[in-house]
Amino acid sequence: MRTALLGAGRIGRVHAAAIAADPRSTLAAVSDPMPDAARALAGEHGVPVRGIADVLADDGIDAILIASSTNTHADLIEAGVRAGKAVFCEKPIDLSLARARAVQAVAAGHDRPVMLGFNRRFDPNFAALKAALEAGEIGRGETLTITSHDPAPPPVEYIRVSGGLFRDMTIHDLDMAAHLFGMPETVTAQGACLVDPAIGEAGDIDTAMVLLAWADGRLAVIRNSRRAAYGYDQRVEVLGSAGMLAAENVTEDTVVRATAAGVSRAKPMHFFLERYARAYAIEWAAFVAAVLDGGKVPATVEDGVNALAMAEAANRSLAEGRTVAVGEV
Amino acid sequence: MRTALLGAGRIGRVHAAAIAADPRSTLAAVSDPMPDAARALAGEHGVPVRGIADVLADDGIDAILIASSTNTHADLIEAGVRAGKAVFCEKPIDLSLARARAVQAVAAGHDRPVMLGFNRRFDPNFAALKAALEAGEIGRGETLTITSHDPAPPPVEYIRVSGGLFRDMTIHDLDMAAHLFGMPETVTAQGACLVDPAIGEAGDIDTAMVLLAWADGRLAVIRNSRRAAYGYDQRVEVLGSAGMLAAENVTEDTVVRATAAGVSRAKPMHFFLERYARAYAIEWAAFVAAVLDGGKVPATVEDGVNALAMAEAANRSLAEGRTVAVGEV
Amino acid sequence: MRTALLGAGRIGRVHAAAIAADPRSTLAAVSDPMPDAARALAGEHGVPVRGIADVLADDGIDAILIASSTNTHADLIEAGVRAGKAVFCEKPIDLSLARARAVQAVAAGHDRPVMLGFNRRFDPNFAALKAALEAGEIGRGETLTITSHDPAPPPVEYIRVSGGLFRDMTIHDLDMAAHLFGMPETVTAQGACLVDPAIGEAGDIDTAMVLLAWADGRLAVIRNSRRAAYGYDQRVEVLGSAGMLAAENVTEDTVVRATAAGVSRAKPMHFFLERYARAYAIEWAAFVAAVLDGGKVPATVEDGVNALAMAEAANRSLAEGRTVAVGEV
Amino acid sequence: MRTALLGAGRIGRVHAAAIAADPRSTLAAVSDPMPDAARALAGEHGVPVRGIADVLADDGIDAILIASSTNTHADLIEAGVRAGKAVFCEKPIDLSLARARAVQAVAAGHDRPVMLGFNRRFDPNFAALKAALEAGEIGRGETLTITSHDPAPPPVEYIRVSGGLFRDMTIHDLDMAAHLFGMPETVTAQGACLVDPAIGEAGDIDTAMVLLAWADGRLAVIRNSRRAAYGYDQRVEVLGSAGMLAAENVTEDTVVRATAAGVSRAKPMHFFLERYARAYAIEWAAFVAAVLDGGKVPATVEDGVNALAMAEAANRSLAEGRTVAVGEV
Repeated sequence: MRTALLGAGRIGRVHAAAIAADPRSTLAAVSDPMPDAARALAGEHGVPVRGIADVLADDGIDAILIASSTNTHADLIEAGVRAGKAVFCEKPIDLSLARARAVQAVAAGHDRPVMLGFNRRFDPNFAALKAALEAGEIGRGETLTITSHDPAPPPVEYIRVSGGLFRDMTIHDLDMAAHLFGMPETVTAQGACLVDPAIGEAGDIDTAMVLLAWADGRLAVIRNSRRAAYGYDQRVEVLGSAGMLAAENVTEDTVVRATAAGVSRAKPMHFFLERYARAYAIEWAAFVAAVLDGGKVPATVEDGVNALAMAEAANRSLAEGRTVAVGEV
Repeated sequence: MRTALLGAGRIGRVHAAAIAADPRSTLAAVSDPMPDAARALAGEHGVPVRGIADVLADDGIDAILIASSTNTHADLIEAGVRAGKAVFCEKPIDLSLARARAVQAVAAGHDRPVMLGFNRRFDPNFAALKAALEAGEIGRGETLTITSHDPAPPPVEYIRVSGGLFRDMTIHDLDMAAHLFGMPETVTAQGACLVDPAIGEAGDIDTAMVLLAWADGRLAVIRNSRRAAYGYDQRVEVLGSAGMLAAENVTEDTVVRATAAGVSRAKPMHFFLERYARAYAIEWAAFVAAVLDGGKVPATVEDGVNALAMAEAANRSLAEGRTVAVGEV
Repeated sequence: MRTALLGAGRIGRVHAAAIAADPRSTLAAVSDPMPDAARALAGEHGVPVRGIADVLADDGIDAILIASSTNTHADLIEAGVRAGKAVFCEKPIDLSLARARAVQAVAAGHDRPVMLGFNRRFDPNFAALKAALEAGEIGRGETLTITSHDPAPPPVEYIRVSGGLFRDMTIHDLDMAAHLFGMPETVTAQGACLVDPAIGEAGDIDTAMVLLAWADGRLAVIRNSRRAAYGYDQRVEVLGSAGMLAAENVTEDTVVRATAAGVSRAKPMHFFLERYARAYAIEWAAFVAAVLDGGKVPATVEDGVNALAMAEAANRSLAEGRTVAVGEV
Repeated sequence: MRTALLGAGRIGRVHAAAIAADPRSTLAAVSDPMPDAARALAGEHGVPVRGIADVLADDGIDAILIASSTNTHADLIEAGVRAGKAVFCEKPIDLSLARARAVQAVAAGHDRPVMLGFNRRFDPNFAALKAALEAGEIGRGETLTITSHDPAPPPVEYIRVSGGLFRDMTIHDLDMAAHLFGMPETVTAQGACLVDPAIGEAGDIDTAMVLLAWADGRLAVIRNSRRAAYGYDQRVEVLGSAGMLAAENVTEDTVVRATAAGVSRAKPMHFFLERYARAYAIEWAAFVAAVLDGGKVPATVEDGVNALAMAEAANRSLAEGRTVAVGEV
């Protein structure tokens, strides 16, 4: 599967490596508005730098991977599907729910696979938890707790264009909640700026707890912070009628150090590139399989719209101090 | 310190043993409206069964321990302090916040120590977590998660007179939240009946998540269920500006079993009598110390009123689907 | 069961508390050649100080608990059984294997129960491991690893009269090996003085590894050190044909501390008084049950002789650099 | 670095992938006496099948990787260094210590790097343990425990040509002991056939404990079994003067399952291909770095001779029931 990569930044480099490593896909071109970044990454892989229009017009390109800035995602997905390409796009579709829904309508009118980069669905630990849940190992799931703490906050410049905590960071957790329990009925959010006052000055929060409730009474809580001194804290826990499942952090190594000071172990892997390295490879293989072998992509445009709707409901809940139905937004 | 025990039920037996084991206190009498229960427990300890009025009038009795049914607590506390006794009372003071506040006023007018039985404050694990938090090991506390799952729901007859999940079960967690973070400003509760339909028919819930928010932006979530197939799940976790503290479950033993089926360990201790056995002894020693050595009791009538106010706010939040200020109730 | 305690030192105090706490036994007298120690402990329990001969002649005394210095054990066991008392004696019977065997012969000629204080057999964790092994959870046991590291070496004065590492410290592990796997056929010991040169100057070692082999091919290793900076390290691990069992250390609390420095937990409980507190109580109850209810004591004089024989074989193996059959000694 | 792979079996495939994945090396040819295996692997990588003599004569080949059967290793190493190639060879050099020493002499007469495939040295967990030990985190190392249990025994046909447990399996652990503590002075081995009687009939053992002693008193024990129902058990533990380090097993995932049956986690990764996948890649990169950048290879022919000498001493110890000095063999 010949793939053009649109976006040569940090996450683009991760995807370029995944494309090259997968035996069923080939990196065929790199596009980026920053010529230096494009040239550097293309050079490492021995592929040409090409313009986006050029790539879309090339029948020899089977798929595009959109890893460019968020504000270009919606246009590129639409252009990709109209050009008959299979499309893989990093989350989110767009910061505007209305725009995301418009993309959904366009994508629905074409038959090429479009997949959203909800990488955590492909983490082997979360996938094992989901498999155990679906196998009935703990009976029926009743409550869900998703923990997502970044090691350190991003620069406030990033915060300003991020769409806010719920659409930028919590969106992964909202998608995980829907992935595990289906779409919730209501969202109740609480948040504050505790980590960096500059984030508050930029109009955002950096700490949050979000309650989700399902029509049948199931409940979830998402715990978010932009800062965890001990590393990237990524956990999921489900209480069920017959037990509990918990996917714990992945640590840097398995060494235990016992001294007069205590008994210590390695911290969680520092950040998403390390923690989700395997997830990115598995995610890409899933997309390749959907394109080459047929079948539903495992993270759809609808999933992206749903996550954005929950984030929007969280924003409204925080602003109005009340529980908000997802159907309202 | 000669102590009369009022109430010879399950929790009364625990306290009788703690009184007898403490080198500074003596069990002097047992009272209970059920003559058989009173006689049995008194007999085991070689002490007389006596009526409450008789005990209160006896200058040889220094303290009373109230472990009778909830609807008698308020009257007995008031009678005890008026009789000049030191009073230890199981939580809650009363199911009515107004009545509890009246007791608080009465107690404030006397100088005898009155202590509430918030046993979890005395659990060595939670106490070690609190000490580490106060020592600044993780900087400033920012978010708090309290997990409290009972192994199995009580009979629905108990549910009917319990005052409801928030006043009966969550009240321990609300007190723990205040113990660790101080009094919150708002309460937001979600709940459902997922465990036993009979509980729902009795007008109660058996599963809940409660968000607390402090004026300075700190947040907490309490996770409650009346059922955990794997035992009594009692955990506390605090995320701070410089790290995280977590008090994990106490297990039945330390044996690891590795077989073709997986690597398994013992479950959490089954229920509160086992899990909090040490806490009950430490709690009683703290009360004895407050009475004999002077100083503030470590769990006051005010703490009990506060916990009840938070539970009341949780009830109102659940009923009205909105965030409720504790100051409202 | 009225019990006289012979020996008012550190371990005597532990046993006095166990005697007093058990509902079926009473502390009736304390004897000790050091009058101050005897008076202090007797006073705390409100019992008289009495001479040994006086105690042995008193028909109102049912049992004696020997917690005096090692060199008195053999004589006191013999005197006790001859006086018709049930006898509980701290390990070892004697430092001389011949003398221990003589005691065994004397005890065999009387019908009163004699129990040796191999406290680790009664540790709930090791007991749970043994129960799982005997229940066949890991098939047939094949190899065994016993780890026993003290937190810090004793004073060299103690070392000088201790009988050496194998008879003083390893003896517990040798007994545990026999308790779990039966009597081994051979012993192969390696040892060195690595912790404190004064121990070497006193003719002893402070670090050892001892291999045991059974006639049917099963193997064990005992790991010993007089020093572990992180506390009292007491573990047992069994590899079987269908899996592995491991009893891990008991920790001071369950608190996890995650900071930029790592993720740390509490150390093992510091030393034997804390770690084996429950074991001492269970051990005493087992003796009381054997005396009052009949039945075999769960740690016999023969067990003590066997452990001493293995220790003697370890000494010979270390001296001669070869594998030694237990039957040789 | 253009590399020819000699040997297209299971471990050859692992190395072919490592060669291809490393950005600084290229797989240039595959040789194997089994034409089908050679063609299949060569075809997957798009490289030619070539004869060994042809490869050795080709100046365009920089390095050879020997992954053929053990009885060919010695000849191929010698041929490789004589042809001026850098040589990477799977352990062992040869089953004969004398032959291995002859190879060492030949290799010493040439200046091309020769590296032995002691893959466990490159496992990130063991490497982190070694780094912590050398950084003094636990003071001076005193005792060492190496656990190596295979999930299931190999076919008895393999056992017959394996050289026996100590030279085939324990050799990895003996090398790890020397890697961490330097060369020991003596070896004391005990072993038995407990897993599969056919192994015993083939003249081998399947279960062993091997004690190592260093001249300065340090001690080690190696625990080996050909069977562990719970997977590939690979652990290292060091007790030092100021604490303990332990590298624990790497598990399949981080999911905890808590049910009425207990609290279980994933098993260790099943076998060496999974467990040491990262180690193989790191090992190969280390060889490439030694060849291209200069410097000592991190696992030398001398290391291979040393491990074989320890294995030989273990064989003699087992046969003669005594401690054997490594200098004897």
